Amino acid sequence: MAKKPRNAISPTREENYPEWYQQVIKAADLAEASPVRGCMVIKPWGYAIWENMQRVLDGMFKATGHRNAYFPLFIPLSYLEKEAAHVEGFAKECAVVTHHRLESDGKGGLRPAGKLEEPLIVRPTSEMIIGEMYARWVQSYRDLPILINQWANVVRWELRPRLFLRTTEFLWQEGHTAHATKDEAIEETLKILDIYATFAEDYMAMPVIKGIKTEGERFPGAVETYSIEAMMQDRKALQSGTSHFLGQNFAKVQGIKFQDQDGQEKFVWTTSWGVSTRLVGGLIMTHSDDDGLLLPPRLAPEHVAILPIYRSDEDRAKVLAYCDEVKNGLQAQRYDDAPIRVEIDDRDLRGGEKLWYHIKRGVPIRAEIGPRDVDSGAVFVGRRDQGVKEKKSVDRAEFISTAADVLGEIQANLFKRALKLREDNTRTIDNVDDFRDYFTPANKDKPEIHGGFAHCFYVEDPAVEALLKKLKVTIRCVPVEGGEEEGVCVFTGKSGARRAVFAKAY
Amino acid sequence: MAKKPRNAISPTREENYPEWYQQVIKAADLAEASPVRGCMVIKPWGYAIWENMQRVLDGMFKATGHRNAYFPLFIPLSYLEKEAAHVEGFAKECAVVTHHRLESDGKGGLRPAGKLEEPLIVRPTSEMIIGEMYARWVQSYRDLPILINQWANVVRWELRPRLFLRTTEFLWQEGHTAHATKDEAIEETLKILDIYATFAEDYMAMPVIKGIKTEGERFPGAVETYSIEAMMQDRKALQSGTSHFLGQNFAKVQGIKFQDQDGQEKFVWTTSWGVSTRLVGGLIMTHSDDDGLLLPPRLAPEHVAILPIYRSDEDRAKVLAYCDEVKNGLQAQRYDDAPIRVEIDDRDLRGGEKLWYHIKRGVPIRAEIGPRDVDSGAVFVGRRDQGVKEKKSVDRAEFISTAADVLGEIQANLFKRALKLREDNTRTIDNVDDFRDYFTPANKDKPEIHGGFAHCFYVEDPAVEALLKKLKVTIRCVPVEGGEEEGVCVFTGKSGARRAVFAKAY
Repeated sequence: MAKKPRNAISPTREENYPEWYQQVIKAADLAEASPVRGCMVIKPWGYAIWENMQRVLDGMFKATGHRNAYFPLFIPLSYLEKEAAHVEGFAKECAVVTHHRLESDGKGGLRPAGKLEEPLIVRPTSEMIIGEMYARWVQSYRDLPILINQWANVVRWELRPRLFLRTTEFLWQEGHTAHATKDEAIEETLKILDIYATFAEDYMAMPVIKGIKTEGERFPGAVETYSIEAMMQDRKALQSGTSHFLGQNFAKVQGIKFQDQDGQEKFVWTTSWGVSTRLVGGLIMTHSDDDGLLLPPRLAPEHVAILPIYRSDEDRAKVLAYCDEVKNGLQAQRYDDAPIRVEIDDRDLRGGEKLWYHIKRGVPIRAEIGPRDVDSGAVFVGRRDQGVKEKKSVDRAEFISTAADVLGEIQANLFKRALKLREDNTRTIDNVDDFRDYFTPANKDKPEIHGGFAHCFYVEDPAVEALLKKLKVTIRCVPVEGGEEEGVCVFTGKSGARRAVFAKAY
Repeated sequence: MAKKPRNAISPTREENYPEWYQQVIKAADLAEASPVRGCMVIKPWGYAIWENMQRVLDGMFKATGHRNAYFPLFIPLSYLEKEAAHVEGFAKECAVVTHHRLESDGKGGLRPAGKLEEPLIVRPTSEMIIGEMYARWVQSYRDLPILINQWANVVRWELRPRLFLRTTEFLWQEGHTAHATKDEAIEETLKILDIYATFAEDYMAMPVIKGIKTEGERFPGAVETYSIEAMMQDRKALQSGTSHFLGQNFAKVQGIKFQDQDGQEKFVWTTSWGVSTRLVGGLIMTHSDDDGLLLPPRLAPEHVAILPIYRSDEDRAKVLAYCDEVKNGLQAQRYDDAPIRVEIDDRDLRGGEKLWYHIKRGVPIRAEIGPRDVDSGAVFVGRRDQGVKEKKSVDRAEFISTAADVLGEIQANLFKRALKLREDNTRTIDNVDDFRDYFTPANKDKPEIHGGFAHCFYVEDPAVEALLKKLKVTIRCVPVEGGEEEGVCVFTGKSGARRAVFAKAY
């Protein structure tokens, strides 16, 4: 019987999924907790993934007419108070600046001094400061639409932080647009939802469901919140991006008015939308395996890790020269409209250690090169989406000329796998008993082993909340595609129900 | 006598330089003050310049082995206290977070609640949090060097804010490196100084002097601070970037230790270095004229503005089709390793208004195209570095094929002009009376009209401070190039003096 190969990550996904997630991050050196409560440090490999995400999304925003700008980190308390639902939603998690200097405490230490007349909130989101500026900028219909995005840090005080998924400070982009008509604003909200879904599927290789949030899950102050929802490998849902149609709620409290072509003074219609470093968490949980991180090539900081192997100085020179040639050959090839990204890892480490280093960091292709490979004009190639031992010797020229295709295959393969996981763990459910069974773990010690996604006819009703709470299940969304069908609510028997997606969630 | 052409900016530089600066920013729509005290809003055109700066600098940092990461916004008060000089330098300008939520104040409003056990400082710079992490990461000489950069926002409470030059919150990059030896750390400090100087001169077209700061001007906690200093058009100096050799000062208070190859436990040697959105202020003040902003092509968000001119619908179709062809032709040309950036401005504005719009925003090349230009296969071209009326008709093919060269000429021209300004306003001064005269405005109503830069032999001495203070002159730096010569101090007669640069400064 073949011996089970050792895994680089302990525990495995099956043994303990939440702890596996932490260990994947540690093994890939993506991030770590900082001594500042709830705040993480994003380390270079993790940040490079975020930079790639930023580059792609930024290009998509710009291609659709958006421009970047930057607004203040601080929001005066009185601004936050203007929109009742909004402040209600964020009041419990605001970092508050109350002083603007430090003075001696007389005991050799320092204490806050220079008390501010009005406290400042560290932005949890920027509707209340950006809208204030829009009110100054918008006079006429000619000033519309305003299509602005901001890349920034935000702070939402977090009592149970988890790296990338939920941190007190996180990095994100927040788009804020203002339009002359309701239709235009809704169109914008949906356009961004599509961009998010395209990014998730085509770049992150993470299938998502686009949908509308129910009332209880709406962004504080929004008229409608749309989201993309992805299934992680523990079959829980991850809300991965949201796009909000804010109606005139913010415009009215902030006084964002314009003179329309008909001479009338009107309030603008606004939207806001964002994705954050949470996406990195989604990326990790969608693809990684028990050997560590697995990166979709389009977002991988490096596509190919070349690992020279030699013992003598003579071999060293020969092997390194050959590695350089392979590197140059690969860099002359293009993948995803840019040169293939290659690193030669010539650190003084044991071969096995070095190999696992790149496996755990999720580099899509590994190319081991020793003296015998040089002699035979070959490269010993491993793919991160295949077993660690499924390596093969490939002719050098062929390796170089097909590398871009292989990267494309890996990208497609990862999406296919993730989609299959979701399909295998999604059910249409038509009665409450089945629903209960589906979400009740068969084994109490493995609460993470449960159904997955359930599609059920549902009419919003507070009475259903108790059941959902007991099962720790949430309504993810009403899908925008294929959501037209009407039926009878599985929970209440009410008619006029829409198919909603239910799942346990992050 | 030719009538003096009207200027777009009022007042002119000569009439009131500080106000001219504000008006250039307003006319180019770069930024504006926000309702949050001391914080600015960077508007899309201003932010696009910063994005270009970021892109170039980021590439230079990565090409020299640095990688980006991200560290928390907040620093626990106790961390800040560790390095005495450091905290002394920043205590008076720290935003302090003391609470983590809001609660009802019983009068319909909100008040801070959830008092923190330890206050958090919003980072004024990140040595104290990054060093804390380095102490965890560094064990052995194999972990060194650490070469990390961070793009982030920082807060230094500012009582007299000026857009870009001095704001409570600003955007910057901060590099933080740790090395095994002193020599390596000094080499890094100087390597970055060179990168900053290259960026300033080759991209911003802003000549700079690289130098060492005197003791009183050092970064709080540094052993040596190096800076680049540029002359603005009012002949004042702008410190535009700093690179600090921190010795082992921070390593010792933070415990950043490693086991060296010789088996000994040693403290690392660290550096830190940064440039900020202040560079945008420097760019504005170096090149802009009384008609508004003037952008060096390498950093301009747009290289060419195409301005269609027509009256009838028939002409409209013809002119716009031609404009598209010109745009496509230009975009197929490369300048500075990328396609030329072109915009067709087809907004419904009067011709003059539209023309001035692009002049005031500093677009390097304007191409006006009307029906007659279409008929003659030409383009009516204006360069932003030439007079508004110095326009000429250029054959279309020639315009397209020479556009990149023209952009290169403009870039070179701007640098040449700025260098001439500095050379014309720099003097070597050998006695105190001349020094006093040089820096005393001839006209009390025009305090900005004074000498410029003075090179004087100088030995650091507190006795000179009173004179400098009275004249409102500062020691900018001791230049690293050509600074070997020794002489007698102009102020004290002491020997062993080095040539230092003196100037009024921002």
